Amino acid sequence: MPVLLLVDAARTGAGATDPDDRIRVVRADAPHVQVLDLGVTRGDGVFESFGVVDGAVQALEPHLARLGRSLAMLDLPELDLDVLRTAVLRSVELHEPRPELLCKLVVTRGVEGSGVPTAWVYTDPGADFSRERRDGIAVVTLDRGLRHDVARTSPWLLQGAKTLSYAVNKAALREAARRGAQDVLFVSSDGHVLEGPTSTLVARYGRTVVTPATDQGILAGTTQAAAFDWFAAEGFDVAERVLLTDELAGADALWLLSSGRQAAPLRALDGRALVVDAETTTGLLRHLLGRRE
Amino acid sequence: MPVLLLVDAARTGAGATDPDDRIRVVRADAPHVQVLDLGVTRGDGVFESFGVVDGAVQALEPHLARLGRSLAMLDLPELDLDVLRTAVLRSVELHEPRPELLCKLVVTRGVEGSGVPTAWVYTDPGADFSRERRDGIAVVTLDRGLRHDVARTSPWLLQGAKTLSYAVNKAALREAARRGAQDVLFVSSDGHVLEGPTSTLVARYGRTVVTPATDQGILAGTTQAAAFDWFAAEGFDVAERVLLTDELAGADALWLLSSGRQAAPLRALDGRALVVDAETTTGLLRHLLGRRE
Repeated sequence: MPVLLLVDAARTGAGATDPDDRIRVVRADAPHVQVLDLGVTRGDGVFESFGVVDGAVQALEPHLARLGRSLAMLDLPELDLDVLRTAVLRSVELHEPRPELLCKLVVTRGVEGSGVPTAWVYTDPGADFSRERRDGIAVVTLDRGLRHDVARTSPWLLQGAKTLSYAVNKAALREAARRGAQDVLFVSSDGHVLEGPTSTLVARYGRTVVTPATDQGILAGTTQAAAFDWFAAEGFDVAERVLLTDELAGADALWLLSSGRQAAPLRALDGRALVVDAETTTGLLRHLLGRRE
Repeated sequence: MPVLLLVDAARTGAGATDPDDRIRVVRADAPHVQVLDLGVTRGDGVFESFGVVDGAVQALEPHLARLGRSLAMLDLPELDLDVLRTAVLRSVELHEPRPELLCKLVVTRGVEGSGVPTAWVYTDPGADFSRERRDGIAVVTLDRGLRHDVARTSPWLLQGAKTLSYAVNKAALREAARRGAQDVLFVSSDGHVLEGPTSTLVARYGRTVVTPATDQGILAGTTQAAAFDWFAAEGFDVAERVLLTDELAGADALWLLSSGRQAAPLRALDGRALVVDAETTTGLLRHLLGRRE
């Protein structure tokens, strides 16, 4: 059974109540959101997805920090991260044990006019990604239509915030399916490699591993950060830098990294077959799935 | 009291039930949306807002036709427009009479995995726009970051669909407020005038009235269409064409048109004061508010 917790995450002053008193366990299959919630009328909110392995929530603090950055980018109020952290941990404790779980934290701007954000945490086993991790995925590049620098020039476009307005991401995945692929790698209108709709690209060139620099309106990947720790420990040089689309063809291996799927090697890009780097993938997945915090 | 109707709008085959049997009146302030509804987790759905004057729903069929186009652009199933039409009309009948109402029809992709769209109709008096209609609004131009032709080159960007993923539109309105303005006029990255976050631009040059052509990834305005009927009847030449940002400064009058506010003259653009064309605005509003279908 999935676990759903409704969370009162507003910041309070002195004499704050126990976080557990601000978390309510509810039925996951009952309605809990009003039709005037700006989360559903405007996709106006933010979220984070936490990977959970053997009951341990991975990258808890980096996810919470990123949520805080997304909240700020949307001019949403700062929230009580202690309450949110407690809710994430509680939802995992309340779920029956599984090798892997996925925990999703959602914050909306709340019911229109209320000024009070709506927040919940939902945990379930997620999808089974064992095949994608082993055999790889076919990916297509799609233009996101924006220059690589719009996060600096046009912050109202919210590039780099993890918002609930993901209709374009879902449409891009449907376009990928029409092209016979399972995922998307977005590129900027001026030829920079960006990210997947829900993942971070990592490319290996010999003993150097590269991910696109996050000052290009893309999310800082929590799984990518953990992957870079491993690559560095294994003796690879790691770099966050501009990666041009022309450079993709020369990569020795490509992966899309995310909290649920962890690491999926690319077995094709835009219809061109790629060699899956099985040895590196195995070591990388062992490290990522071995994280217990 | 606002009126909220939940609608089963799936298309059925022969022996379809009475539309009224597929509409359920519910409390507007109770929760009706599940947290797994893709409308709230992904902003994955579409909507229309209908102006209602003296109990008459304006531009009912153009709105329903546009909803159909938005559904298709998101690869959502075709819905039973008879049921949706009945729901819109019923919600207005059930509301206590007011000079003006605003009726909002929302369709989401539904609860993840269900394959069944969620739909509802919500009607309330909306905001009082009398001051904006009379005194005008201050507007700022903001870059949408996309070329004018992305609807053709990159349909997965969903430009021209009226989706629930409106976080960028809301962020743009907050940016406008920071600049001392009340609304936004989006422009393309290559210098074409587009539209407001929830409105259509109309510009008057002498006896010619222009609106940006809708093949630039923008919505066909239902209120703009009604306005053009009036302008044409008044002897103006009307044209849908490319309008470049450089042409804005030379306009004799500018308006933003939408279903609730109907027509708001611009009294300033990017901090430059504009003369409100009171005479034309009065005639235009009389026509728009006089529509009884």
